[in-house]
Amino acid sequence: MDYEQAVQIVRQKLKGPRLEHTFGVVDAAIELAERYGVNKDQAKLAAIFHDYAKLMPINELREVLLESNEDERLLSYHPELWHGPAAAYLLSKDYHISDVDVLNSIRFHTTGRSNMTLLEKVVFLADYIEPGRNFPGVDETRNLANTDLNAAVLQALSNTIAFLAQKKRAIFPDTVEAYNSLV
Amino acid sequence: MDYEQAVQIVRQKLKGPRLEHTFGVVDAAIELAERYGVNKDQAKLAAIFHDYAKLMPINELREVLLESNEDERLLSYHPELWHGPAAAYLLSKDYHISDVDVLNSIRFHTTGRSNMTLLEKVVFLADYIEPGRNFPGVDETRNLANTDLNAAVLQALSNTIAFLAQKKRAIFPDTVEAYNSLV
Repeated sequence: MDYEQAVQIVRQKLKGPRLEHTFGVVDAAIELAERYGVNKDQAKLAAIFHDYAKLMPINELREVLLESNEDERLLSYHPELWHGPAAAYLLSKDYHISDVDVLNSIRFHTTGRSNMTLLEKVVFLADYIEPGRNFPGVDETRNLANTDLNAAVLQALSNTIAFLAQKKRAIFPDTVEAYNSLV
Repeated sequence: MDYEQAVQIVRQKLKGPRLEHTFGVVDAAIELAERYGVNKDQAKLAAIFHDYAKLMPINELREVLLESNEDERLLSYHPELWHGPAAAYLLSKDYHISDVDVLNSIRFHTTGRSNMTLLEKVVFLADYIEPGRNFPGVDETRNLANTDLNAAVLQALSNTIAFLAQKKRAIFPDTVEAYNSLV
């Protein structure tokens, strides 16, 4: 699948701010890929597809996860965590995307996981720092992203875990493993 | 083992502020035990012994953990997490303490774990809120401890996880499981 085809598919799924966010992630992913020596075509494909399942209704996402071999522990956690694995499964099934690194970058873009590949880190970080993002801590993470990929991913994970803990929301274990693997 | 014997043993291990802290934990544990219907003798015994191994040198703690069946994952985390499991093992071996709930309350008093017993929660919380403690968030946790044991333990875990994440220090998975089990 080339990038232009992917854009056409995504345009049918996402509109307005969600589509703008997606193109922001593509731009950020390209920049990070160039800076850290990651394949740009993989980064673009993973970025354009990362929120492919973002707007699916929760009950459909649940069915996709039950039908797939994705991590069943997710079903006990916030539905916000479901769209990455669901997208990876659907893109593999419906569009025969077979690049495991691309699929995993989509799969783990919300939770992270221990020992992420460079591409996984690029997509995870691009989603966090794309130009449309505006929340406490994002500028510090953007600055780190200019010089140190691991430090920037760690900063994003640290912000996320502290935010969830302060809000008393469940923290998916893989996010803590991602964090611990970078500490 | 009765409480007075335990005090004599602990007085040989701990001095000064660490001993004062221990008696503070005993007082807090008695108060919490009365409030939440926990056996007071178990609470006193677990509290007086909770820091039994706190002042052991790190290399000795490591040897104790290697010799025991305690959780080996701990050895990859901060040595601060080692003294609880080491104490549980040593007290069982050297003084034939056999009350599993008392031993687990000592074992998990620093990390917590999922689905803690009432006694485990009382000791964990007493260690966090005893009168000598003075750090951001402790008063909020003390207030919660007056009315809701689970909410207070969750607050302590939430503070701990947010603190560690902000400091970019490793977070032991059992602490997150303890937190998630109460969210």
